[in-house]
Amino acid sequence: MKRLALISSLNLLWIPLMAQTGQLTGFKAQHQTAQYALEKEFDAGLSKEHIGELIKELSSAPHHLGSPRGKVVAGLILNQFKSYGWDAKIETYYVLFPTPKTRSLNLLSPVTYTAVLEEQQIAADPATSQKGQLPPYNAWGADGNVTAGLIFVNYGLPEDYEKLERLGIDVKGKIVIAKYGHSWRGVKPKIAYEHGAIGCLIYSDPKDDGFVKGDTYPAGAFKPEYAVQRGSVMDMVIYPGDPLTPGAGATKGAKRLTKEEAQTILKIPVQPISYHDAQPLLAALKGPVAPAEWSGGLPVTYHVGDGAATVRLNLAFNWDIVPAYNVIARMKGSKYPNEWILRGNHHDAWVNGAADPISGLAALLEEAKSIGLLAKKGIRPQRTLVYAAWDGEEPSLLGSTEWAEDHAAELNQKAVAYINSDGNGRGFLEAGGSHALENMISEVAHAVNDPQANVSIFDRKIAAEAVAATSAKAKQTAMGKKVLDISALGTGSDYSAFLQHLGIPSLNLGFGGEDEGGEYHTNFDSYDNYIKFKDPGFNYGLALSQTAGRAVLRLANADVLPFNFENLQAKIAKYLTEVTDLDTQLRANAKANNQLLNAGLYKLAADPQENLKEPKPKTELPVIDYAGLKTASDTLKSSAAKLNQAIVAGLENIRQPEKLNVLLYQAEKQLLSTAGLPKRPWYKHTIYAPGFYTGYGVKTLPGIREGLEQYQAEEVKQQLVVLTESILNLSAELNKAAALVK
Amino acid sequence: MKRLALISSLNLLWIPLMAQTGQLTGFKAQHQTAQYALEKEFDAGLSKEHIGELIKELSSAPHHLGSPRGKVVAGLILNQFKSYGWDAKIETYYVLFPTPKTRSLNLLSPVTYTAVLEEQQIAADPATSQKGQLPPYNAWGADGNVTAGLIFVNYGLPEDYEKLERLGIDVKGKIVIAKYGHSWRGVKPKIAYEHGAIGCLIYSDPKDDGFVKGDTYPAGAFKPEYAVQRGSVMDMVIYPGDPLTPGAGATKGAKRLTKEEAQTILKIPVQPISYHDAQPLLAALKGPVAPAEWSGGLPVTYHVGDGAATVRLNLAFNWDIVPAYNVIARMKGSKYPNEWILRGNHHDAWVNGAADPISGLAALLEEAKSIGLLAKKGIRPQRTLVYAAWDGEEPSLLGSTEWAEDHAAELNQKAVAYINSDGNGRGFLEAGGSHALENMISEVAHAVNDPQANVSIFDRKIAAEAVAATSAKAKQTAMGKKVLDISALGTGSDYSAFLQHLGIPSLNLGFGGEDEGGEYHTNFDSYDNYIKFKDPGFNYGLALSQTAGRAVLRLANADVLPFNFENLQAKIAKYLTEVTDLDTQLRANAKANNQLLNAGLYKLAADPQENLKEPKPKTELPVIDYAGLKTASDTLKSSAAKLNQAIVAGLENIRQPEKLNVLLYQAEKQLLSTAGLPKRPWYKHTIYAPGFYTGYGVKTLPGIREGLEQYQAEEVKQQLVVLTESILNLSAELNKAAALVK
Repeated sequence: MKRLALISSLNLLWIPLMAQTGQLTGFKAQHQTAQYALEKEFDAGLSKEHIGELIKELSSAPHHLGSPRGKVVAGLILNQFKSYGWDAKIETYYVLFPTPKTRSLNLLSPVTYTAVLEEQQIAADPATSQKGQLPPYNAWGADGNVTAGLIFVNYGLPEDYEKLERLGIDVKGKIVIAKYGHSWRGVKPKIAYEHGAIGCLIYSDPKDDGFVKGDTYPAGAFKPEYAVQRGSVMDMVIYPGDPLTPGAGATKGAKRLTKEEAQTILKIPVQPISYHDAQPLLAALKGPVAPAEWSGGLPVTYHVGDGAATVRLNLAFNWDIVPAYNVIARMKGSKYPNEWILRGNHHDAWVNGAADPISGLAALLEEAKSIGLLAKKGIRPQRTLVYAAWDGEEPSLLGSTEWAEDHAAELNQKAVAYINSDGNGRGFLEAGGSHALENMISEVAHAVNDPQANVSIFDRKIAAEAVAATSAKAKQTAMGKKVLDISALGTGSDYSAFLQHLGIPSLNLGFGGEDEGGEYHTNFDSYDNYIKFKDPGFNYGLALSQTAGRAVLRLANADVLPFNFENLQAKIAKYLTEVTDLDTQLRANAKANNQLLNAGLYKLAADPQENLKEPKPKTELPVIDYAGLKTASDTLKSSAAKLNQAIVAGLENIRQPEKLNVLLYQAEKQLLSTAGLPKRPWYKHTIYAPGFYTGYGVKTLPGIREGLEQYQAEEVKQQLVVLTESILNLSAELNKAAALVK
Repeated sequence: MKRLALISSLNLLWIPLMAQTGQLTGFKAQHQTAQYALEKEFDAGLSKEHIGELIKELSSAPHHLGSPRGKVVAGLILNQFKSYGWDAKIETYYVLFPTPKTRSLNLLSPVTYTAVLEEQQIAADPATSQKGQLPPYNAWGADGNVTAGLIFVNYGLPEDYEKLERLGIDVKGKIVIAKYGHSWRGVKPKIAYEHGAIGCLIYSDPKDDGFVKGDTYPAGAFKPEYAVQRGSVMDMVIYPGDPLTPGAGATKGAKRLTKEEAQTILKIPVQPISYHDAQPLLAALKGPVAPAEWSGGLPVTYHVGDGAATVRLNLAFNWDIVPAYNVIARMKGSKYPNEWILRGNHHDAWVNGAADPISGLAALLEEAKSIGLLAKKGIRPQRTLVYAAWDGEEPSLLGSTEWAEDHAAELNQKAVAYINSDGNGRGFLEAGGSHALENMISEVAHAVNDPQANVSIFDRKIAAEAVAATSAKAKQTAMGKKVLDISALGTGSDYSAFLQHLGIPSLNLGFGGEDEGGEYHTNFDSYDNYIKFKDPGFNYGLALSQTAGRAVLRLANADVLPFNFENLQAKIAKYLTEVTDLDTQLRANAKANNQLLNAGLYKLAADPQENLKEPKPKTELPVIDYAGLKTASDTLKSSAAKLNQAIVAGLENIRQPEKLNVLLYQAEKQLLSTAGLPKRPWYKHTIYAPGFYTGYGVKTLPGIREGLEQYQAEEVKQQLVVLTESILNLSAELNKAAALVK
């Protein structure tokens, strides 16, 4: 906040200003002043110019997992931490990582076309023509040389295949072409395979990510015609990390599955292509005109295909075991050395990765620098800080997952929270994670100044929400907010092992919304692009350091850890309403659908010239009783409220703060299911999971929600028991904590 | 209905079949059998092959208003009517009609381009290269030679200009380019002019009407790159018809305004162009990237423009007075010769007009043929039938409006109802008009067989509604319908003078929804196109004859005219709920908008790099009291119900049927406002009007709804008085009618 600068000279204003700069929950009154002073000092140690220098250096060359430059980058980061006074080392894991050996794609009929499969070198941006780039590919698709008819499947979502079925189009034995977007890329080939496809192409349509969105690079930020989004297609909703060592660290001597045994490696070849390469393929398709909402921005009529247009896709990979270099830096806590505040951001990139991941990593390093300066002045954190720069995030969270699995026992004891970032840009705070930390991060957001507006990042975020709200009521609700609504986390960055496997309260932080562009996982995610389109002046790099750094330092120094389970319960209650609404809606929709079917109305309404098939009858779900879950949620509400009241009342005089804090930071583990989620035991969190068919996209109360979506009533009932029990366990744990305070 | 064929052989099934084939409201029991028999006979006289022959002949050459072929077509129609045994004549009016003299459009900077402004001759369709075509133009734009910077205004709607204002773009002194669609074309240049633009281009974007929708002609039905939609841009929401003779027939000696006095001729030049011509213009624009939802299907980044791209538009017209040949055919009623059932469809086309208007006209002629055959057998209608083929509809309802104005006094006495059509195609019944006729046309729809499905057109329409409904509840509501929800009418075809100026109960009928294409007002609205894409086999031509013919014959022969004012009142009550909801919503939105403004949130939320301006403060409306209107609506409900009950109870023994029927068919006139609507006294109907800023699109309860939309509280209050009075007058009239029955 601008006004913070006034504090020292205007002590009279201290109390009202504190209210404006946010509360400091969990700090005794006499410690608040010190914490505010520390944070001011922390801010003073941050330099946006230095953040810029770090971004420039660390993104100066391609540095993917296993590359020579990747190793150099890890070393540079190690040296930075050391130079800041941290106890840093590299922890290496040995992970499977496929890189391309053969890549070719040909249209064979009705006309021939050979796909370029290379990005363009852009004269205005020398980074685009550097040596050492991985060419466009999707990691974890299968080796294969397949020739088949081509079918356009829109975004390749389950509902797209329902439409195809109604159109009478079967992808069995075919190669599909799907647009990037609306689901994580990895679920597109997975769903294609489940429907019998033998190959999968994924392209960025200019309507979603190209000239339709805005001017293309280098004139604008959007994707030019030859650019391709690389990326992992591992089936990471089963488990992320090294496919050969699920649940265990991929140490040198670890027991490994064979590649064939690994569940998360796909069974069909997958290749990402540019819209330049997609256009002749799409233009060659005949068969039904694609449904209106499937059309993209290319100047062709989008058809679904009838199998007559044939393509050959030939892919082979080097399936090497490569070292993943995690850089781990520690600063030992002065008071509670066995309580760890974890903070991480990956360092590997698909190419140069100025935005993804270096912009987030540079902010993290800058926090470490400033915290190091504080330490040199004798102001050490009370809890131990563990700062991590992960390797191998891009091929599906390899570095962080292996490290978390390897250190699971210690983390279970010591990890208070994990705070993640993964790139950064201009705009608004985007925060997601454990809702027990919602209040804490909101307080932080009240205390950080927005670089472009003379208000806090909290106020600017609320302004954006109020303006974006589509009803007068929603606008007023947004305006009245005192606490941010942070999102729930699916997957897609390094928090997954911490949050969803180990139950460590986690946050994912970053700024964005005014940094839109098409550079993601391309050769123009470069420094030149970054300073022009993502965060000119590195102002939001600084804001990220201030935000994540404050979160770390408040968690490190709080007398009572600032978890607020009332926020968590409120979200659980909201999700419960969502799933019961979903239950009602699925039931009503199934009934209506079946009535229409029985009355023959789908046939009557269909254009006989289009030969549209009737939808299938829908399962009418048996009655499912949510009363027990509702009661558990209410019980949790009461426990959480009592605990908060007890802490507020007793804060100045806690009898066993250490015991209380351990209870608080381990409470979220009560929400883990021992057996894990159906079909994917690695994911144990009963509240948050990546969607089985959405990938990155979160499914809250996943056992129940996905059971309903898939009409698996027995699974829903069984998961209701698990969830109810875990919520009651959490409630009991909070009661224990409350008892400690009294 | 297929089952109708069984009736003669299975008399035992007569009664249940009647229920299935629809009721015959207004017919005494002993007359129903005769009417069913008559309708069966009427059906037998219809021939889809003959409909096809008529379409082929009448669309064989360009035949716009004032063209040599137009006169020939009128003569051919006259001869058809005469050959069917009707008393037919041509009634000629003398109307202003601009045709192009000079048309040129040039991009002058940053690069030069000369627009083609001509449609392509398509080898597969010889009609596209015939002589006598009017080139692409918009009638009623001004003469002018203007040079100015070009601005892209999306669809040119009022809200588009609000967005432009927020983007800091002023169209004053500029030429605008707008996409066809989302409003009637004529309101685009009108709104542009109100904002200070000096010229207007309108083009069909391929996303709305071109290759994005489907394959282009002749491979598919959609608009190829050089095709252009012609059309009127007269300000017909003020008044339609001849601009020089508002409110009076344009007879040879009529008193005429000067062209300069005519309110409905636009003040700026307007030219429609193809997407081939639009692309270089759009590609030349710089300035802000257009809002995402403005983007079309051309392979360019859509920018709004900054005025640097300059175009010259040079247009001049021949402002000639030309004859409009209305063909009017009568068949005198056997019992009530002074009660007229009117039926019309225009005959003029922009080019060949196989679909628009000839497909509708051919169905009308086929009805006349079959009714003529019945008459020859001695089965004459009890009321007089007036069948009309209007000229000059395309340049804004010239023929029908001048005829209606000229014959207003007689029509006020004699016109029972007007049934319009305007082209036809494959698909579902689309019916709109006076809701007092909703029940009648629903009964007709129950009695007509769908050519593609073995059910009535009613059942198929309901099936489509149920399938299209987006919620389970809406699906079930649709499935339960016994009466169609017919739409309210704005303008855009020949019913306007009858319905909205004279208060004659009107219907507009046609089939469509499976005949999508881009031929509208182009050179490929041809017979070849029609038989391939619009209604192969002319099955729906036959269905239109059966539907409109039944409506005519039931109105002609009913003992008590089948008006049902309960349907009308239900719709008035619905519209009343809509406007009070609108009132609530505008009030809440204004309040929320102003709160956000006062709190500075728009500024905070905006991207400072985009320089987005704050929206303007919104007027907070004073309290408006709708209670009187609500009471009037309830009063009408009660009167309408009593009248229906009285008619049902007394049908077999009506004392003064003629007096009752006059009251019934003149009742809708009570809904006319003597003063007409604000700013446009020609439009007198208080329930239905074209939108002042939507054109064709209807505004129901227009005085109130548009007053609210424009934040004119005093106008709303004044119009509330007018509307309330008119509804109470209608109620009183229905009471009179009910009293006659008892």
